[in-house]
Parts: sequence; C-alpha cells; structure tokens
Amino acid sequence: MEALKKAIETIGEGKGDNIVKVDRFLNHRIDTKLSTEMGQAFAEAFKDDNVECVLTVEASGIAVAITTAQALGNIPVVFAKKGDPLTVGPNVYTADVFSFTHQVMNTLRVDRSYITEGMRVLIIDDFLANGEAVFGMMNILMQARATLVGVGVCVEKGFQEGGKRLEMSGVKYVPLAVVDHIDNGKIVLRDDK
Amino acid sequence: MEALKKAIETIGEGKGDNIVKVDRFLNHRIDTKLSTEMGQAFAEAFKDDNVECVLTVEASGIAVAITTAQALGNIPVVFAKKGDPLTVGPNVYTADVFSFTHQVMNTLRVDRSYITEGMRVLIIDDFLANGEAVFGMMNILMQARATLVGVGVCVEKGFQEGGKRLEMSGVKYVPLAVVDHIDNGKIVLRDDK
Repeated sequence: MEALKKAIETIGEGKGDNIVKVDRFLNHRIDTKLSTEMGQAFAEAFKDDNVECVLTVEASGIAVAITTAQALGNIPVVFAKKGDPLTVGPNVYTADVFSFTHQVMNTLRVDRSYITEGMRVLIIDDFLANGEAVFGMMNILMQARATLVGVGVCVEKGFQEGGKRLEMSGVKYVPLAVVDHIDNGKIVLRDDK
Repeated sequence: MEALKKAIETIGEGKGDNIVKVDRFLNHRIDTKLSTEMGQAFAEAFKDDNVECVLTVEASGIAVAITTAQALGNIPVVFAKKGDPLTVGPNVYTADVFSFTHQVMNTLRVDRSYITEGMRVLIIDDFLANGEAVFGMMNILMQARATLVGVGVCVEKGFQEGGKRLEMSGVKYVPLAVVDHIDNGKIVLRDDK
C-alpha cells in the first residue's frame, strides 16, 4: 500500500538489525488519515469474504481494526485483552503467547460470548514479527469453532518468521508493507508485495 | 447522547454497587457504528476549539479517540502507554496514576516529540471513574506546556469523584452519558446530561 510504504520510508526509523520504529504514525502517535486508508485497503482485500467480525489484540491493533470494521460496513471489533484477568471475568477463551519484544509470556483473553461458532472472523494487527499474537488469536478462533477468513497486518518484518509461518498455514494473508531488512538505520521494503 | 444511553440501558449490566459493565459495545467488543457516532458527538462538542491532536490512553480509549480524530478532520491521535517502558524509549513525559479497578499504580508515558508546546489537545477516554487517568494525561500536557482544550468521556460513573473534580477544575468537560447509580443490576442514567 503506497501511502504506508511512503510513511515507513520517510518517517520510520530502523535501529540495529531488527527494530522497525514506526511509532510516529502507527503505534504511539497515529496518523488518522493513514489509519483510515489502511482500513479501506484491508476491506478491499477481504470484501468478498463475508467478514462478520474483526479480531485484534490490544493496544496498537485497535485503531486499524476499527477503521477496517468501518470500511466493511460497521461490523463489530473484538480486541483480545493481555492484562489483568479482572477486566474480563472467568468466561473466556485464553491463549498464551510469547512476546519477543518484551521477553515475557502474555495471556490473551476473549470473552466467549463475543466469538461464536461459525462466525466469520478477520484478524487484523499493526505488526507481524514472529506471529505469536496472530497465532494466539487463531488458537482462540479454533477454540470457539469460528471461521478464520484471513489475516491482515500493516507492517510485516519480513526477516522474521511470522509471514512465512502464515503462508505455510494456507490462510489468506494480506500484509500492507513488508520490511526486507534494515540498512544502516534505513528501513528497506520488499518490492514484491 | 441517545444511542449510547440506549446501549447502556439495554445491553449494559450493573454489578453490585459500582461496576458498570459495558464491554459488549465499548471496551472489549466494540460497536463500530456507535463508536463512530460517539466520535462525531465529541467532534461537534469541540468543533470551535481548534483541536490539533487527540490524546487518550491505551487500550480501550483508542477506538473512540480515532473516530473523534476522523470527525475533527483527520487530526492525529496520541495514546499514552501504560506498559513496558521498552516500547517508548527514554525521551518521555511520565505521570503515575492509580487504578482503582486493578489496585495498582501505572505509569503513563508519552514521547516528548508528539505533544509540543502550545499544541491544542483534546483528551478522550471511554470511561471516567475517579479520573485518575484523565488527570494523569492533564499532568503530561502541563509538562509539555500544551493547551488542554477539554475532556470528553463516553461514560462517567457519576457516583465517583472524577466528574466533580473535572468540573471544579474549570476545564471544558463533555460526558456522553452519566451513570447515576446501579439499582439491583440495572444501570440508572442521570437525566440532566
């Protein structure tokens, strides 16, 4: 997606070999117009898939999940919670996911009444590295016997394993930009996506 | 705001004396249309205030912050982070806030480059109880010498102190619905707002 690629190349920063810093427009400060356009791009990619619900994980996935849900006709968003189980109660699906960024295990929790059997669900997230969060959400959809229609991510770190794992799993997978590598502080995008 | 009040009265649940459970449409599952309409209501209330940026706090404030920013002409959103300081780096404003829900102290962090001196900022959040998160964000705006144009919250728990504290502070304050009390599991809204 051109607007996102341009933002990554002009405003994003690479650090070391593998840190892709895009918090100026994606995951701390949010460029609202770009977020809306990314939602429209996901909606276009999944427009024939009869999506009934967008699933994401707090916190930085929520913005683009909302704009995607708007563009798909105001379908609901559910965001998996990572924090205190107090906020969700006991009637939940859970999945344990390891965060490489923070080197901790998080438990994702989704209230069982919000993802139901047969529901057609699109997973959206802002970032894909090793794919732990996405695979955790897929695990929750399996527990709920919901139907995964696909996965959309704004930025894939193409030099980590998540993208390959998703493609091997056979799921419909749409990244809007793929980082190939970092060259001396500059983020180099892959051309073929 | 009528659509929100109706959702609270028909889908919300009261628990005990003070738990207002609205996670079916506001803070776990999100009603996208309602979220968009709440954003429009905030934008209408602050349309003459030359808002340049919406500030909220992760996670459940993000959805309505985005829809407000869309309705104000695609201005940027900044969300304060509560979690691991690793994700924001050292160049941050911080404010310590106590969470009554979780009985823990959280540190809010905002990158200094995203809130600048004189910037006209609207604070948006989904919920107001004692107002700790909002006062933490106000503290950050003071550190940044930004201009607070007002505070908008979707649901105020009117029987806690946050609303009164905000009104006493003299800030322009717009709640879209105020819970007066809980009567045997039923959420009773205040009429006068």
